[in-house]
Amino acid sequence: MNIVALAGGIGASKLLLGLYRVMDPRDLTIIVNTGDDIVLHGLSISPDLDIVTYTLAGLVNPETGWGFRDETFHTLEQLAVYGHSPWFHLGDRDLATHIHRTEMLRGGAGLSQVAESIRRAVGVEAKILPMTDDTVPTMIDTDEGRLHFQEYLVQRRAKPRVRAISFEGIQNARPTPGVLEALERASCILICPSNPLISIGPILAVPGIREALRDRRRRTIAVCPIVGGKSLKGPSDQMLAELGYEVSALGVARMYRDICATIVIDPADESYGPEIQSLGVDVIVHATVMRTLADKEVLAQRLLQFAESRRAGVAA
Amino acid sequence: MNIVALAGGIGASKLLLGLYRVMDPRDLTIIVNTGDDIVLHGLSISPDLDIVTYTLAGLVNPETGWGFRDETFHTLEQLAVYGHSPWFHLGDRDLATHIHRTEMLRGGAGLSQVAESIRRAVGVEAKILPMTDDTVPTMIDTDEGRLHFQEYLVQRRAKPRVRAISFEGIQNARPTPGVLEALERASCILICPSNPLISIGPILAVPGIREALRDRRRRTIAVCPIVGGKSLKGPSDQMLAELGYEVSALGVARMYRDICATIVIDPADESYGPEIQSLGVDVIVHATVMRTLADKEVLAQRLLQFAESRRAGVAA
Repeated sequence: MNIVALAGGIGASKLLLGLYRVMDPRDLTIIVNTGDDIVLHGLSISPDLDIVTYTLAGLVNPETGWGFRDETFHTLEQLAVYGHSPWFHLGDRDLATHIHRTEMLRGGAGLSQVAESIRRAVGVEAKILPMTDDTVPTMIDTDEGRLHFQEYLVQRRAKPRVRAISFEGIQNARPTPGVLEALERASCILICPSNPLISIGPILAVPGIREALRDRRRRTIAVCPIVGGKSLKGPSDQMLAELGYEVSALGVARMYRDICATIVIDPADESYGPEIQSLGVDVIVHATVMRTLADKEVLAQRLLQFAESRRAGVAA
Repeated sequence: MNIVALAGGIGASKLLLGLYRVMDPRDLTIIVNTGDDIVLHGLSISPDLDIVTYTLAGLVNPETGWGFRDETFHTLEQLAVYGHSPWFHLGDRDLATHIHRTEMLRGGAGLSQVAESIRRAVGVEAKILPMTDDTVPTMIDTDEGRLHFQEYLVQRRAKPRVRAISFEGIQNARPTPGVLEALERASCILICPSNPLISIGPILAVPGIREALRDRRRRTIAVCPIVGGKSLKGPSDQMLAELGYEVSALGVARMYRDICATIVIDPADESYGPEIQSLGVDVIVHATVMRTLADKEVLAQRLLQFAESRRAGVAA
């Protein structure tokens, strides 16, 4: 069994933690969005990579879903004294990750080597691969100008109206070594419940990845990040609406129909079932709102069942 | 009145704090050793500049004489998880200084501009000038090989036997803008009680500085860092001995005789007085061991008296 998951940050991590606990984690490969990456205070920050790694290592702050638990913010406080705006919350332990990453990158390592060194250091047994070692910042064109995604989301709290999204330099980006091979070997490819536009979107935009999924559409399953017309986490709903997408399980199924043959939707969205099926996408109705660890494990078990069925299909 | 002080780290800072409190701090310019500077974890660290700045800002840890008071070390702990040896103690607040410095330097600023931005941010009213904006690491040749000064002092705890000291690239270094002008305008030049070899030595080795002091020898006064054959702070005594210098007030007077006409020695060393005077160096006997704030202020007052006498002399 090889499960390959496409992941953004907090939403994806909840499900990944469930999977990590119910399967052999060495059979799990996670391809993580790096469009959110940003350089702040001269340090290279990879928010989604860190959220996934900290979560699986049991280090994440359970209240926020990002950063370390029991964290302090003394460096940031002193940086503010030196005139650096502290809009991006970097904790003291978290900064060690960014210092380590920046030093490795400056020394010539790729982001994937950095990710590997971090996940090993904190004892994560699943493979964690950044989607690309190239720099492909997600830029948001808004009614207040062009903003880096983090400026839009964190600094401006998703207030400006979104007109377009682009991933700078994506046409020349290459998948990280191992990404296409992992997709090829996968008995199941899981699209985590992350923002389709700015978490899963950048991964699919790396040349070769969307094509690889298309070729493995029967093995690919998405967990819908929209429940009852709202995002499970973050501003997905608002961004989808501002860009003219239908904010529903059906809207998500339309975005993924070419790359996945199955979608998990919440019982709240059961009524969309027939219309989604008419798109050629199978529907699994299962609770997708994960509040407790048990919620995460139960959904993960259901996905494992699907993966088993696909592995049988692949073997047949 | 213009006082210009040549300073290393902890020893110098005690006296400078006294001076800072008994005079108009805007009339004080401090030229600081940067031979100790080192890049660790990709961050540019200037220990002596920071010790002087933190001390005058009232931020320094009173127990160690370096770093911030009430400091935490969470970043360093996590860096150790990533395999970085934590031999150099970098606190969380302190790291903000290094992150700020590194970002400014990478952006093209000089070390003197960084020092200026930091001292202003923390409200220090004296001028703080690094001796040079060039990189001139102090290297120690030892019986265990060639080491950066911090590796010798902090990592190896001054255990290897010193054979020679050099300041890499010093022959091409230029004094920071303002240094020579400050020395020229000074009514008094003060050599702080710092290690003559590796704190004051690098400053004097920057082309033009030793010459400037020689030309102003009558205005220059040194506070002897050796009392009763021991260093006030750090491994000066041991280093002097290993390099064949006499470890005494007389030995220090010999090292400085060409650049200063007056030296302050502790009552414990009064017996050296006649021999020092025979070198052409005037002696002021005054307590130089500064345990309390009052000790620092009393010695500073005595130095101000000397400075006043020299200003009168300069004016005459």
